[in-house]
Order: sequence, then C-alpha cells, then structure tokens
Amino acid sequence: MSESEAEHHQNPIRFGILGCARISHKFCRAISLLPSGTATISSISSRSLDKARQFAASARLHSSVKLLSPYDALLEDTSVDAVYVPLPTSQHATWAIAAAAKGKHVLIEKPAALCVEELERILEACEKNRVVFMDGAMWLHHPRTTEMRRLIDDPSQIGRLRLIHTSSSFLATPEFLQNDIRVKPDLDSLGALGDLGWYCIGSILWATNYNLPKTVVASPSLSLNQSGVILSCGASLYWGDGLVATLNCSFLSHVSTDLSIHGSQGTLLVRDLVIPYREDGASFEVISGAHFAELHIGWTKKPEEVAVKAPVPQEALMVLEFAKEVKLVRDKKSDPSLKWADISRKTQLVLDAVKKSIDKKFEPINL
Amino acid sequence: MSESEAEHHQNPIRFGILGCARISHKFCRAISLLPSGTATISSISSRSLDKARQFAASARLHSSVKLLSPYDALLEDTSVDAVYVPLPTSQHATWAIAAAAKGKHVLIEKPAALCVEELERILEACEKNRVVFMDGAMWLHHPRTTEMRRLIDDPSQIGRLRLIHTSSSFLATPEFLQNDIRVKPDLDSLGALGDLGWYCIGSILWATNYNLPKTVVASPSLSLNQSGVILSCGASLYWGDGLVATLNCSFLSHVSTDLSIHGSQGTLLVRDLVIPYREDGASFEVISGAHFAELHIGWTKKPEEVAVKAPVPQEALMVLEFAKEVKLVRDKKSDPSLKWADISRKTQLVLDAVKKSIDKKFEPINL
Repeated sequence: MSESEAEHHQNPIRFGILGCARISHKFCRAISLLPSGTATISSISSRSLDKARQFAASARLHSSVKLLSPYDALLEDTSVDAVYVPLPTSQHATWAIAAAAKGKHVLIEKPAALCVEELERILEACEKNRVVFMDGAMWLHHPRTTEMRRLIDDPSQIGRLRLIHTSSSFLATPEFLQNDIRVKPDLDSLGALGDLGWYCIGSILWATNYNLPKTVVASPSLSLNQSGVILSCGASLYWGDGLVATLNCSFLSHVSTDLSIHGSQGTLLVRDLVIPYREDGASFEVISGAHFAELHIGWTKKPEEVAVKAPVPQEALMVLEFAKEVKLVRDKKSDPSLKWADISRKTQLVLDAVKKSIDKKFEPINL
Repeated sequence: MSESEAEHHQNPIRFGILGCARISHKFCRAISLLPSGTATISSISSRSLDKARQFAASARLHSSVKLLSPYDALLEDTSVDAVYVPLPTSQHATWAIAAAAKGKHVLIEKPAALCVEELERILEACEKNRVVFMDGAMWLHHPRTTEMRRLIDDPSQIGRLRLIHTSSSFLATPEFLQNDIRVKPDLDSLGALGDLGWYCIGSILWATNYNLPKTVVASPSLSLNQSGVILSCGASLYWGDGLVATLNCSFLSHVSTDLSIHGSQGTLLVRDLVIPYREDGASFEVISGAHFAELHIGWTKKPEEVAVKAPVPQEALMVLEFAKEVKLVRDKKSDPSLKWADISRKTQLVLDAVKKSIDKKFEPINL
C-alpha cells in the first residue's frame, strides 16, 4: 500500500446526516458502495430520536453510528467532518450556515436554496469557514457526463451550439400532490421548478460550459396548486448569439429526463440523464456530420449509441468527488475549491430568473 | 383480376409536373415504385423546353411523356388529371388556382402557400372546381405515422398530452445560403419557417389531432439573411389546458427532424420523422407507465423500439393516397374529400401566427 493510499484508508470523511429523509437511504447506500476509507456515516440526526432509530434500523447502519436529536446536536459532534443536508429547501440556509459555522463541509440536496440571495449567504458562510460546498446533482458525476462533455468540447462533433432542449418530469400520485414536502409552500415553495427544474437548468448550463443566458422567459403554460406551488412550468433561455434552450419540468407528466443538444455539426441525445435506467452504466446517442442522402430518400448515417460503464452508481461517485475535495482541505490544508459552489450559484441564478418571469406574468428577465 | 382491379389498372392517374425542380426526381421515382395502374407521368413542363428535355433524360422518363413549355401548355393538356407543383412558394397560388380552374387535381409541395389567405384562395378554387388538394408532407403517409397515431389515441399509452417538442434542421452549405430558392425573398420568403417549420407545425398539430393552439409566440432567437428571409426561428404554442409545444427550425444546425410527445402516461420519440433513416421501414421509441425504481436507482422500464415496415417509400404512399382520392372523384364522381386540405389550412394558420409574432417583435398571437 502506498503512503497516500494508506492515508486515504486511515482517514475517511465522516458524514453527519441532517434529517432522515427518504433520499438519505440512497446516500447511505452510496457510501456503502465506496472503497473503505472514502467516507463513513458518523452520526444521523432527526427531529425525534425515535425517527433516527427507525432510520438507522431500516438503513442497517452500523451500531457505532450516533443517533442524535435535534439537528443542533449533530453540529456539536466533533467527530463529524461534513454534513449531508436533505432537509426541505426552506431549511437549507439555516442549517447549511450553522454547519459551516461549526467547520462542517456541506453536501446539500437540490435545489440548493429558495433564491440566489439565500444561496449566496450559504456560500459566504462556507467560504468564510473554509468548508467545501456541493449540491446533490448526481448526474454531473456520472462518467457518461464526462464522455458527453468531451464530445461537446470537440468542435468537429457537435460544433456551435444552436438548440438545447430539456424535459424533467414524473407523474405524481394523488398522495404526493397532497402531502409531499415538494408541494408545500412553507417547505419547498419552488415545487417542480426547484425539484426538477434544477436538473433542466443545470444540464443546459453544463452543456454551455456555464455560459449564462442573456434572457430568460417563463412559459405561460404554468400549473400551480392551491397554495401557489409550481406543479409544472417551462421556460426559454436566450444567449443572443443564435443559441436557444427550452426547458419543461412537471409533476404532471410521465417520467422523463431528456436532454437534446443540437449543434451546427452534430446532435447529442440522452433520455435518462438524471437517473440512468440502470446502475452499471448509461448511454447516449450522437450523430455528427450527417446529411440527407441523394434525393432525400434517407440519411447518410444514423445516430450511434455510446455506452459508458459506471464502476459504482453516480451518487457514490458524487460522494467520492466531495470526499476528495474535503480531504484536500482537511488533510492537505488546501483552500476549498469553488468549482461546485459556482455551478450551484449559476443554476440558482437562472432558476431565480425563471421564477421572476413567472411572478412578472412571463416577462423576459435579463441576466 | 376482379372488376375493380381491372378498372384500377386501366385508369392510372395521369400527372403533369409543373416545374422540373430537384424534388420532381423524387416524385417521378415514387410513381415508378407504385403498382402499375396507380399513377403515371403524362407531361412535364418547365420554363424552357431544353430544361424539360434535360429533366426527362436524367429522370429516364418514358418517351411517351410530353415535354411542354411554358407551364400554361401543361394546363391545356387534357390528358393530365392532376398536377404536381414543386414551384417556389410565391408561385403556388397562381399555378394551383390555374390548374384547379382547368379541372386538374392539385398535389403541391410544402409550404402550401405564403400565407393562409393565399391558401384559402387555392382551396376555394379547388372546391369550386371539384378537385382534390393535398400538400407534399410525405411523413403523414408512412405506416409508422399510423402506428404512432394508434398509440397516441390509446389513453393508456401516452395519456393526456403535456409537452410536444419538435426540431427540424439541416446545415445549409454556403452555396445554399447564397443561391437556393428557399433563401430568396421573392421566391420563398418564409425561408426555414416555410421549408422546415411546416414539418414542425404539422407534426405538432398531428399529435393533437389537429386541435389548434390558443396562443402562439415566436422565439426572440431569430436569424434572418440580408434580405430578411428566415434562416432559423422557433416558437412556443399554448393550448391553455396545460399542453405546450415548442418548435425550432433552422438552416444553421445539423440535420434533425425530432418529435417528442410527452403525455401523462407515456412518452413517444422519433428522430427521423420527416425523412426516415432508411426507405424500407422506420421506428420510434415509446415508454409508458414507467417510474423511478425504489430509492431512485434506476427506472422500472426502458423505452421500447417499435419498428414498422414500409412496403414502398413514404413519398410513394403519398402518391397512392392522392391517386385514391382523385380516382374517387374522377371515376366514382364523389365529392373531393377535404381531409388533406384541412390539414394544410391548419398548418398554414399556425405558421402564419408564428410569422406574425416574429413581425410583431415576438408578441403572443391569439388564434
């Protein structure tokens, strides 16, 4: 074992989980799939100790995991390096800032915040306290995403970006529409825009290498519930250079997580962007340099499927990346990288613009 | 041979071609692929006899095909039952109305006209003279289209329509952008909106069973050439019931002819809608009733590919359908069906609204 490997094994990142949400199970499973020494769960906290106990049993956590309540107790726990925050969005700022103040690194579920001002406060707290910030957009860490990035950045493959189309949806059950935190104005007032639009906007910005659009216009086709929470919405984004992007996010449509990227030289399509169909790998379609055949009786080529294997699921790769960044700070005393914070900030900025356009009756919002 | 088969063989529909455009080659080939007795080419006309002669040689037309010039001569030819009109759009009204006045049935290339008022004049002339009208949208006649229709109309498969996205594009060569009739203001002033937007709008309306949107808004991302002809544009269509459709058509982007239909229960996707990759058949993808798997670590199912064989290419099936309608009028003395005229009218109506929104600086246009 080399020295660095030995060090790695001796010093896993110790996570505290702030809230026993359903997605925390997925997070625990992700950690269990990583090489030992990457990360461990040190403590979990819930509003009641009973809930924490139930979660620990159902997630089969090791008996050494501390069960704490309320959340403050977890922030006082000096054995915790980093917190995972799957709380309702309205509670993100409070707990992320409190965690940063205690020197805990912050891995937070999406949407990162209710608005960009709130996110800025979180990011300032993280910067001031020298802790890493990352949001829970798992797809960014899939090796397929890296391979698509390579094709987009190769001018001969996709070329100049012209049109990006994204759709993120699922058909919510009546129970979800009645009770889920994502339809409650005091918990997740952004509704589908926060929960699903985060992916649409994130993937559009990712495709452009985080080049912000000049103008954002929300679509007048909007569904709100009785409390004014967004159940379905859409928007168009304009860069002023011929590139346009459209997004639609909805709790009222069959499951979809489409991303189509049309460039001057080629097209890239993926239909299971956010959650791949299977865990062991994922694919996308690409077609480049095609034309209609002579007399327009066919195409000169068909799209090709590019398959990419995933050594572990994308959520585990996300934790791996986060742990790597945290180790650089904790063990190497590096400054925290701002890479993931910047991605979150830009995503939130565009999300805010969509929300503002909705609030202003679909007026264009200039960024 | 039955009596009706005998009659069929004795009475092919005799076409006159008004203009030796490149697409007329495809039309001649389509006729050659149909069972004998369906349709024949009786006459072709061009602005010059020389051009007609060259076309006849290059398309290897039978020596019995009459070569005529100018176009009027073809309309005087009593051996012609129907005309195929591949002329520049600005000449459609003149020649379609003149043909109808001479009792010729009209198969016209898309876009049908420059505006709906012009198309109405064509359709009135056709109705008055009891001749069939159809535009050249070939994909409507592919058996894949019939199979997709069946799935859309089955409420358990796609369900209530929520989002339709279409893209139609090709990367025009510098020569095309300089010289093609589709970029000339006096010939095809609608440019990409007419040439490609016709497919986008047609497929959106087709998906909704020709239910017109309430509102149409053009996208501010617009490219015009120096003469003001549209090289690239987009629009959003709203029905006011939660359904939204987006379209993008462009001469400046890699070839695409995408149609995605998202409903409450399922999603349908086709990427080679307008011109199938191959002539002998075509496929589409459909996924219905899927969910994210437990813990959101996959999907409960993947999209299925549905392959549909084509006995002859879609352009031949279009001629077959047109010939069938014409025979009903010519041989059975039926009233001409208005089915295809109505489809053209609705397509042109929405196309007009996109154009009007562009002209009014992207204001919403109510239909």
